[in-house]
Amino acid sequence: MNSRHAILSLIATIAIAAHATTYAAEQKPGPLTIESQGSFFVGGEVKTAPPSAAAGPAAGGGDITVNQMYVQYQIPMHGEGHAPVVMVHGCCLSSKTWETTPDGRMGWNEYFLRKGRAVYLADQVSRARSGFDPSIISAVKAGTAPTSALPNIIAASHQVAWTVFRFGPSYPKAFDDEQFPVAAVEELYKQMIPDLNALLPNPNPTWTNMAALAKQLKGAVLMGHSESGFFPEQAALLDPSGVRGMISIEMPCPDLTAAQISSLARIPTLVMFGDHLGDVQPGIVNWKTTYEGCNAYVQKVKAAGGDVEMMLLPGMGIHGNSHMLMQDKNNLQLADLILAWLGKHGDKK
Amino acid sequence: MNSRHAILSLIATIAIAAHATTYAAEQKPGPLTIESQGSFFVGGEVKTAPPSAAAGPAAGGGDITVNQMYVQYQIPMHGEGHAPVVMVHGCCLSSKTWETTPDGRMGWNEYFLRKGRAVYLADQVSRARSGFDPSIISAVKAGTAPTSALPNIIAASHQVAWTVFRFGPSYPKAFDDEQFPVAAVEELYKQMIPDLNALLPNPNPTWTNMAALAKQLKGAVLMGHSESGFFPEQAALLDPSGVRGMISIEMPCPDLTAAQISSLARIPTLVMFGDHLGDVQPGIVNWKTTYEGCNAYVQKVKAAGGDVEMMLLPGMGIHGNSHMLMQDKNNLQLADLILAWLGKHGDKK
Repeated sequence: MNSRHAILSLIATIAIAAHATTYAAEQKPGPLTIESQGSFFVGGEVKTAPPSAAAGPAAGGGDITVNQMYVQYQIPMHGEGHAPVVMVHGCCLSSKTWETTPDGRMGWNEYFLRKGRAVYLADQVSRARSGFDPSIISAVKAGTAPTSALPNIIAASHQVAWTVFRFGPSYPKAFDDEQFPVAAVEELYKQMIPDLNALLPNPNPTWTNMAALAKQLKGAVLMGHSESGFFPEQAALLDPSGVRGMISIEMPCPDLTAAQISSLARIPTLVMFGDHLGDVQPGIVNWKTTYEGCNAYVQKVKAAGGDVEMMLLPGMGIHGNSHMLMQDKNNLQLADLILAWLGKHGDKK
Repeated sequence: MNSRHAILSLIATIAIAAHATTYAAEQKPGPLTIESQGSFFVGGEVKTAPPSAAAGPAAGGGDITVNQMYVQYQIPMHGEGHAPVVMVHGCCLSSKTWETTPDGRMGWNEYFLRKGRAVYLADQVSRARSGFDPSIISAVKAGTAPTSALPNIIAASHQVAWTVFRFGPSYPKAFDDEQFPVAAVEELYKQMIPDLNALLPNPNPTWTNMAALAKQLKGAVLMGHSESGFFPEQAALLDPSGVRGMISIEMPCPDLTAAQISSLARIPTLVMFGDHLGDVQPGIVNWKTTYEGCNAYVQKVKAAGGDVEMMLLPGMGIHGNSHMLMQDKNNLQLADLILAWLGKHGDKK
């Protein structure tokens, strides 16, 4: 080996080592020091509920608060200058999505925090700690509304989740290179909770609240996944003033007008899709055409002068990622890709 | 002033100062260093759901997981030797109860942590991030169950909460010495989310899961409030093996058999009630008789040889506390009372 080769080899070794330490070292991360933490709500409106069928406290009717969004946050030491990241989960899930993985590894919430980013986890309106408006269900119980008024509750079964989340070609077979920790899939099933978004008005209050939160934080990067993957864009279409960046993971991209595309093109955008998009049993979601629709959206934003990047992981040599890529075995490697993008495109406070 | 008076005066000053620093200093607490944090589920069973009325992924039927309990934890540095504390919220609320108060002060979750206790926040089964079993609602929607099968959802109105939580004698008048931060009451209303406990089997899976969690932690102190105030005892009646202490705040106490009393008398117990128990408009809860019922329970446990203490706050010279005393302006003073009790009675790991 000549000296040039030796140097190149050394550089390669250092590069691999540096890359490895960016995430592998965090598996036994040691103590965590933060500047502060807490929780609060964004939004919410008071409505008068009629006397309900409930035996409980609301039997006489009265005012209730609806459409509020619960937000839990942690602020790192010395994180000034970095825009906070707001993470919003997908269908049939809660903010648990971003926390400890089903097999007990570090989630993106803590990893981003340890990398100096303030992290805000928001439960979608009508889900988890944000609560939901019970009026319609109670009215049907009381006989003052027809059963057809009941919401279509989405409760994904294990069988459906297996293929929609792309753990394997068909339930319960896994892909050979599957990155999702399928041995711990029962722990994911516990995260899957009923989705009552059918109760929500239009526009979805989660969009309004995400835009308001970004503004309240004087600038934030919004991140969504799956059902909420395009929520950063929907929030920015309502009010872009606080939105410093948008990270959209594995979602359907709707058709937008040229004016909407032009508006969104002013905000740095990262879109990420995993592997095996066309390899699962045909079912509820066709990931291949979903990806193609989003790629067309990305090209339109690019044509409008936007700073937008599509990361199709297998195209980058990263294989086997599922739809739940923030929980996959290489979740911190993917986080590093996002953090590097943030540093270059969406990190201005 | 003679020397004896001077010494007594000095001691009094030191005592007041020491007391003040135990909580007042935490209002601007500075950085927080923890050993670790994360979240997981306890319990949960798989059930086969029939094809549902939902347009979404469960339309074809399949397996879903129900009765799991979401738990979020933080472990302090050097907390070894102290039993962890599991906090479980009350009716129409979530674990938000224990976090940042409605007016933005530190909640008990962080304060206990800063005092060296591992803290586990559990969302009750059928609430918040624990999810709920949607089968019955979907069956009514599909026409395969009658509307009478719908659960009685408890959604406490602002008006009801005001008196049940004892913010004042009648809505919207506050007590002169009210400790709840009533100027921020709208933020409490946002925490109030629908209670679907009517969907739960008996025994309540939250009891089973609390007992299992205490065992899994190789010993824990269980704390409940209001609806869940007696859950520590219910958990211990199912399996006392992991329960090192029970803290029950403002709850109804059921009639128990002598054998049950005798079993519970083996575990150190603290019961706490606030002020104005008989001063609110007659309504859904009669706090005075509720207190009297619990005091009778405490006396029975004491007669059975139990290490049990009733802290009736006004009887201790602490006035104006509401039902939401973990959010009251003096919440950290009350936390200090509990921490001192823990140190003496329920802190063995």
